[in-house]
Amino acid sequence: MKQALFEKLEEQYDEMVQTRRYLHQHPELSFKEFKTAAYIADFYKKLGIDVKTGVGGNGVVARIKGGKPGKTVALRADFDALPIQEETGLPYSSKAPGVMHACGHDAHTAVLLTIGKVLHDLREELPGEYVLIHQHAEELAPGGAISMIKDGCLDGVDVIFGTHLWAELPYGTISYRTGPFMAAADRFEIVIQGRGGHGAMPHKTKDAVAIGSQLVMNLQQIVSRRVNPVEPAVVSVSSFIAENAFNVIADTAKLQGTVRTFSEDVRDLIEQEIETVVKGTCIANGGCGYEFDYHRGYPAVVNHKNETEFLAGLAADVPGVLSVEESEQQMGGEDFAYYLQNVKGTFFFTGALPDHEDAGYPHHHPKFDINEKAMLLAAKTLASAAVNYQKHELTENKAVGIS
Amino acid sequence: MKQALFEKLEEQYDEMVQTRRYLHQHPELSFKEFKTAAYIADFYKKLGIDVKTGVGGNGVVARIKGGKPGKTVALRADFDALPIQEETGLPYSSKAPGVMHACGHDAHTAVLLTIGKVLHDLREELPGEYVLIHQHAEELAPGGAISMIKDGCLDGVDVIFGTHLWAELPYGTISYRTGPFMAAADRFEIVIQGRGGHGAMPHKTKDAVAIGSQLVMNLQQIVSRRVNPVEPAVVSVSSFIAENAFNVIADTAKLQGTVRTFSEDVRDLIEQEIETVVKGTCIANGGCGYEFDYHRGYPAVVNHKNETEFLAGLAADVPGVLSVEESEQQMGGEDFAYYLQNVKGTFFFTGALPDHEDAGYPHHHPKFDINEKAMLLAAKTLASAAVNYQKHELTENKAVGIS
Amino acid sequence: MKQALFEKLEEQYDEMVQTRRYLHQHPELSFKEFKTAAYIADFYKKLGIDVKTGVGGNGVVARIKGGKPGKTVALRADFDALPIQEETGLPYSSKAPGVMHACGHDAHTAVLLTIGKVLHDLREELPGEYVLIHQHAEELAPGGAISMIKDGCLDGVDVIFGTHLWAELPYGTISYRTGPFMAAADRFEIVIQGRGGHGAMPHKTKDAVAIGSQLVMNLQQIVSRRVNPVEPAVVSVSSFIAENAFNVIADTAKLQGTVRTFSEDVRDLIEQEIETVVKGTCIANGGCGYEFDYHRGYPAVVNHKNETEFLAGLAADVPGVLSVEESEQQMGGEDFAYYLQNVKGTFFFTGALPDHEDAGYPHHHPKFDINEKAMLLAAKTLASAAVNYQKHELTENKAVGIS
Amino acid sequence: MKQALFEKLEEQYDEMVQTRRYLHQHPELSFKEFKTAAYIADFYKKLGIDVKTGVGGNGVVARIKGGKPGKTVALRADFDALPIQEETGLPYSSKAPGVMHACGHDAHTAVLLTIGKVLHDLREELPGEYVLIHQHAEELAPGGAISMIKDGCLDGVDVIFGTHLWAELPYGTISYRTGPFMAAADRFEIVIQGRGGHGAMPHKTKDAVAIGSQLVMNLQQIVSRRVNPVEPAVVSVSSFIAENAFNVIADTAKLQGTVRTFSEDVRDLIEQEIETVVKGTCIANGGCGYEFDYHRGYPAVVNHKNETEFLAGLAADVPGVLSVEESEQQMGGEDFAYYLQNVKGTFFFTGALPDHEDAGYPHHHPKFDINEKAMLLAAKTLASAAVNYQKHELTENKAVGIS
Repeated sequence: MKQALFEKLEEQYDEMVQTRRYLHQHPELSFKEFKTAAYIADFYKKLGIDVKTGVGGNGVVARIKGGKPGKTVALRADFDALPIQEETGLPYSSKAPGVMHACGHDAHTAVLLTIGKVLHDLREELPGEYVLIHQHAEELAPGGAISMIKDGCLDGVDVIFGTHLWAELPYGTISYRTGPFMAAADRFEIVIQGRGGHGAMPHKTKDAVAIGSQLVMNLQQIVSRRVNPVEPAVVSVSSFIAENAFNVIADTAKLQGTVRTFSEDVRDLIEQEIETVVKGTCIANGGCGYEFDYHRGYPAVVNHKNETEFLAGLAADVPGVLSVEESEQQMGGEDFAYYLQNVKGTFFFTGALPDHEDAGYPHHHPKFDINEKAMLLAAKTLASAAVNYQKHELTENKAVGIS
Repeated sequence: MKQALFEKLEEQYDEMVQTRRYLHQHPELSFKEFKTAAYIADFYKKLGIDVKTGVGGNGVVARIKGGKPGKTVALRADFDALPIQEETGLPYSSKAPGVMHACGHDAHTAVLLTIGKVLHDLREELPGEYVLIHQHAEELAPGGAISMIKDGCLDGVDVIFGTHLWAELPYGTISYRTGPFMAAADRFEIVIQGRGGHGAMPHKTKDAVAIGSQLVMNLQQIVSRRVNPVEPAVVSVSSFIAENAFNVIADTAKLQGTVRTFSEDVRDLIEQEIETVVKGTCIANGGCGYEFDYHRGYPAVVNHKNETEFLAGLAADVPGVLSVEESEQQMGGEDFAYYLQNVKGTFFFTGALPDHEDAGYPHHHPKFDINEKAMLLAAKTLASAAVNYQKHELTENKAVGIS
Repeated sequence: MKQALFEKLEEQYDEMVQTRRYLHQHPELSFKEFKTAAYIADFYKKLGIDVKTGVGGNGVVARIKGGKPGKTVALRADFDALPIQEETGLPYSSKAPGVMHACGHDAHTAVLLTIGKVLHDLREELPGEYVLIHQHAEELAPGGAISMIKDGCLDGVDVIFGTHLWAELPYGTISYRTGPFMAAADRFEIVIQGRGGHGAMPHKTKDAVAIGSQLVMNLQQIVSRRVNPVEPAVVSVSSFIAENAFNVIADTAKLQGTVRTFSEDVRDLIEQEIETVVKGTCIANGGCGYEFDYHRGYPAVVNHKNETEFLAGLAADVPGVLSVEESEQQMGGEDFAYYLQNVKGTFFFTGALPDHEDAGYPHHHPKFDINEKAMLLAAKTLASAAVNYQKHELTENKAVGIS
Repeated sequence: MKQALFEKLEEQYDEMVQTRRYLHQHPELSFKEFKTAAYIADFYKKLGIDVKTGVGGNGVVARIKGGKPGKTVALRADFDALPIQEETGLPYSSKAPGVMHACGHDAHTAVLLTIGKVLHDLREELPGEYVLIHQHAEELAPGGAISMIKDGCLDGVDVIFGTHLWAELPYGTISYRTGPFMAAADRFEIVIQGRGGHGAMPHKTKDAVAIGSQLVMNLQQIVSRRVNPVEPAVVSVSSFIAENAFNVIADTAKLQGTVRTFSEDVRDLIEQEIETVVKGTCIANGGCGYEFDYHRGYPAVVNHKNETEFLAGLAADVPGVLSVEESEQQMGGEDFAYYLQNVKGTFFFTGALPDHEDAGYPHHHPKFDINEKAMLLAAKTLASAAVNYQKHELTENKAVGIS
């Protein structure tokens, strides 16, 4: 079966590339992916595949029943684009001004559509059921995953797999990690309410710039002193805004930033510590006022151990895969996290560094590009996982060495 | 003579009030005081007083020769207004939207015009010569004084006197100070050129917000550690601008602020120390880049000792003056400083707190108001100084106790 | 064979406890463990075991040849004590004032001696050779390991195993970790050379307390901003010494501290960044002087993957072991690191939380105690590893999921 | 009379030098000046002058009644030495190991004894009464002045004068200042009670070094931001003590320092602000503990205006005085302050820079030296003040310029 699967996917490669390029030319912003959703639905409908649209927003879910009993396996691809003006110069560049598929979601979608087509072809011989989750709005909190889940996309699902084509990893690489893989990504806002005044008379003011600067310095100690050093964590103050005439001491300073963590305990700790630092710093400055808002973004992507090891073991046998590597933890976030809070599964990276010379631009860059051949490896790995998981024994791994 | 002077000024009081109110209704911004200049010139011309316009810009200078030989004494009044929308509700409020005489320069002008009229009347009996300097653009660097001086307004002048109506001082007060009286007011700009990046990956960046905050903290030590404690000095960072998405670490931070000093040595020291702190802080942060610009504003107003004591002594005898007090040093600036770098003289405050209930708004406030009666005290004190200085012996004061 | 091994070790338990208690009563400080070394050597000599003393200092190495060909397996136990006054109140408390086995090295030694006795008994049936490394001076840099290795203790050795009884882990637990397990532990010293002076005249000084405080603040940003968040790292300033009369500004400030890292790249980075921060901070403070010394302590303990998985798999089968768990990375250091730079092997923790009520004091505490029964589990696990490694195939594990 | 006074003082110059050198050889520490007090009393007794010992401790007070009615004028000289090992190499160096007249109090005493002798000689012709206050313990809080006053040394006194020979001012200079002249000198102590722990595990600690460093940084803002810039003020942290092994995070940090101010309002403000900063910084760091003690030392020396002007005017006529200058405010302290809180008077500096080459060492330096000729100028000025004050009209100075 695996062999047939791989061959059929290879046969679809050219079409998959065409699909991806079409999508690349027609990117849509998060929560506004109406035409893309229609395109996806049409693709399935033409093949006679059961498809549901408007799932939790613009989400699209196709379901393929195999001819034999088995587990229900979900695969997920996201399909939103970014507010970036493409500068790749590619012939199939974005036709939408200021909008670009600069993160590879076009490719993810093409991969999953192709898998759907192939699984549909092979359905008679397949056990179980396959749920193809085309998710809108991965790039923008609160993301599409949470609403699609609420709208039932995981109903009956036993396991989920997903991948991200990763242009910073060499082509041929599958990169996986058990446990916390991608970080929870939160946002915070702090307003320091001092008392403005004349720049020549600081003693009549509570200088919000000076207080804010103390605050930024003191916040550094959360990561350096208060978080367990073996727990990766980031507290970044990204904005500091206090704009005044040169001779006016600031009345207010507005700060915002992001927090990245992998465990809920550390996340809770940092939220609390930021407020502690803000509160104490304000008291130290004669009792100035403050506002503090902490907005929780996507939680950490925590891969399940068995499913991750299953995927990693299987990837080694996928034709074309050159290297299967354990990944470092990634401080970036993904709303795939929500699926993994509901069902077992794993999220992994598929190396997609282009082999042309002008490669290596990071995701979200106007010159971002992928290696399209990586789509085939992603498709093979995901499809293979979906099909082979049917016979995977979910035995608790007793050999502790193997974790 | 003094008696005649005081009486004639009192006779002019109502007209002086009318003049001031007219000017109050027709404020003009610094360097754009075309109509005000014309109004002043007309005032003198109608009286047959020698007047010169376009002095160093919009400046107007009237000269009155006394009937006897003597010294040449200058008096100065500024006449520009501020970009403030008046909110006093006075019947003679500003007719120019967004422009207001919110610092009393309208009154200064009315005072000097009135003095001119009276001196002109009395000119036959007066020794010496009187130079009435109507200066434009006091509120905005580089100010009008410096260009008027270059254009000859102090030619032949032996001494200069000037006053500021001061709404924070009670009516009846003359406030003087020998030596450094008002501060030099400088402006600085710092741009921290870090290296921006993803909020989750601080190690790939040079975080301009964190560096800028270090900088603000370290700059505090200039006043607290590096300047002689008996030398008043202020270093205020008024603006800190680094605006980014919550998950983007700042590439640059733009700071600006003001420095206030009374001695050129301290001024030089602080300029140099700021750059030292900026440079060292950038090195400490892995060699980030910076721009540092230091713009010298008006120098300190340094009153001459003899002239100040002369003025203070004389003020005690001005009818209506209730209190002659030594002032604290003032951290605010004034381009009267330039005149005092060129000729002897003194600058003093005339108490002008209104006696109505809604008084006490600071200068530059939309509800700023003055006590118009203070104009008469200012006029008497200035005119008396001008006339009496003729017989003042410029002996170096030997009695050291008297300083 | 395993069964015989376990039984014989159990038979020796009472003697092992007596040995440990004797050692506990006679602790000796690092590099001064003369009597302990003699005791160990005597133990082996009485049994007719080949033993070499004075290995790289006070080190003792026993060698036991099996009756069959096989690999050479080293086991290591350290035997130095700490400069701590015991406060346990145990009947077999330290007889040496101010010296205490407060880290369990007494137990490590008793474990290894017992293993030696048993392996010696079973030697005819055993393949390979067993090298029993009794290491002096683990507690004090540069440690005994490095000199023992130079003196040949690893000659011919194929693999090494070692354990630390860990009083913070429950009895019955074996805790392992592949790759970087315990941190490199470095020390740094910084002297800020300011310019002292009168407390009332800061402007004539370069205030070493203010500069040192800036430095401590700025150093926080190394971990918070400059190190990859997924790389555990610690920079702690432990001492800040500037003692002066209340009215004397500090001439110098002496700081020292520790750095903990797991990778040599991060270690290099932090050493360099500390100097960058020190240098820049000194420049920012008008060019004060500094001394900076960075002393590298033990490198990170990096466990070999195959040997770690072998050990963990095997531990699960040791009678009495209740749980085999993957450990978090540990920020503490161990000079076992050096052995692992030379031969394959692994270092693990054996849970040794006492089961009496007054338990749970941390290592190096005057009331530190262990659960002596944990010695038997340590002995069984180490001995089992030594014997079973003979048949372990050092195949490179192809299944990437299993890492 | 002045002429006679000056001539008689000149005649006594050699003896005054001998007296000073004898005292210089026999210095005694503050509150332990038993022999010095006896020496002073003997001096007066031999001359038949009324003298009282044991005034408020080791204080000695001589009283000389003039032959005519008049005011009671006090002159004060201090006579304690410092815990410094002299390194001047002078032939009349200190014979007391580790004790030295390194601040000129030996000279002050010789000056006042000489004045006493001369006034006694001239007493018949003198109006009023002269109280010669020889004060112990000026160098060490709480100082001798406060207890001598309680013990009656100012009873009946109308005015007091005192001087300090000042080795940093040229010989021939009398330096005076009306109003706040020398600063209040306070001491504070702060203990930060964090929570110590292992250097590798900052998250289990509250790092007292990091918290103390935040504190030192934040304290800088008291002077730079919270005190009126025209009010001289100093907050210096002189000591920072947290001594620990390199791998131990500090449990406590002990800070102490000094505060210098000229007004009681600013003094109160700073005491309060320090505690505010300490409190807030502790809260910002997770609620660590602290102790804060603020010890008020001598208040500011606030010279009375009339008496200062009187002194300054008179000094200009003292033969040998080359320059009478207004002094900057001095951040150093003096318990002469207490006398001026009780009676009118003034304290001034008499320039005493030696004219040999190796001059210019500051007060309290092991090589401190004075120009002995300055003693004569000090004696003439003080004596002249005492005698001439008799005819000084305490008219409120109406001429406001003269302040």
